[in-house]
Amino acid sequence: MQRKPFMLVAVGGLFGLAVVLSHAAKDTASEDPGAQGSPVYGVTLPPGYREWQVISVAHEAGNINDIRAILGNEIAMKAARAGTLPFPDGAIIARLAYEYLPSPRNNAIFGRDQSFVAGNPTNVQISVKDAKRYPNTGGWGYGQFENGKVNTSEKNINTCFACHAKLPASADFVFTTYSP
Amino acid sequence: MQRKPFMLVAVGGLFGLAVVLSHAAKDTASEDPGAQGSPVYGVTLPPGYREWQVISVAHEAGNINDIRAILGNEIAMKAARAGTLPFPDGAIIARLAYEYLPSPRNNAIFGRDQSFVAGNPTNVQISVKDAKRYPNTGGWGYGQFENGKVNTSEKNINTCFACHAKLPASADFVFTTYSP
Repeated sequence: MQRKPFMLVAVGGLFGLAVVLSHAAKDTASEDPGAQGSPVYGVTLPPGYREWQVISVAHEAGNINDIRAILGNEIAMKAARAGTLPFPDGAIIARLAYEYLPSPRNNAIFGRDQSFVAGNPTNVQISVKDAKRYPNTGGWGYGQFENGKVNTSEKNINTCFACHAKLPASADFVFTTYSP
Repeated sequence: MQRKPFMLVAVGGLFGLAVVLSHAAKDTASEDPGAQGSPVYGVTLPPGYREWQVISVAHEAGNINDIRAILGNEIAMKAARAGTLPFPDGAIIARLAYEYLPSPRNNAIFGRDQSFVAGNPTNVQISVKDAKRYPNTGGWGYGQFENGKVNTSEKNINTCFACHAKLPASADFVFTTYSP
């Protein structure tokens, strides 16, 4: 019974430390927002996004000419799988794009020109759902990253919602639907 | 204290039941291998494969005309990510293919014909690494599944290794490499 007061103090001390650390992190972020997140939205590259599950895949031809995997965090996957839109706050979608390359090796094996594979990564686009933080863009914040670094072009980031806003309301500003 | 013997009996009873059920499942499998796994290899659709992480993405044009995600279980992802081939026993690769469809909706939004998306699933191919079980096919066993059901064509399954065997030895009979 004698240990109880000490335990309470120790737990209180840890909690206090956590609060201090949390404030310190916020201060750092507000000092250098460019290094921390995207222009306009302050979206950062979510840790572990490369390990997320797949919503679907796609190919953009023309000038873009990439092949892409669209991944989601747990909250996004749950909504995408169930088709229950709009996505809830906390949903994050990661669109990973790669050079779209013909594969001479595969084509030689198959005996015909048919195989296209992913080359180097081109960019990663992150969409974060947070209705309170992003009330003017359908609840979505956007960020683009090349080689793990945020793209700092405000002109570029403003093309995101301009384009996503053209989708029908039922899509909740998201191009991709779940592929079973 | 009076309850203890009863508890032990109850636990023992449950354990016995589990053993019986386990044997029953095995008997069912050996009675009807065609319904349980692929021809030649006996490969089954691994539970939860749709939640696996992404190795890469690809597009096969021509008669196949699909867009695909290549996923791996934990053992496969670890080797693919590190590039440490051959894959160890227990590695499983799941190739999920979908109809390759132009997206009139996206093309209207982008103002040009460039967008291709995944339609209905066409088939899932599973490659299982087990050097002891599949000594004659580079340690790999294969299975193809449509709508969750195994493809029972022996002719079809025999095309798998015939094609994978044309890859250079360094590829360990696997077409896809990890996209970061």
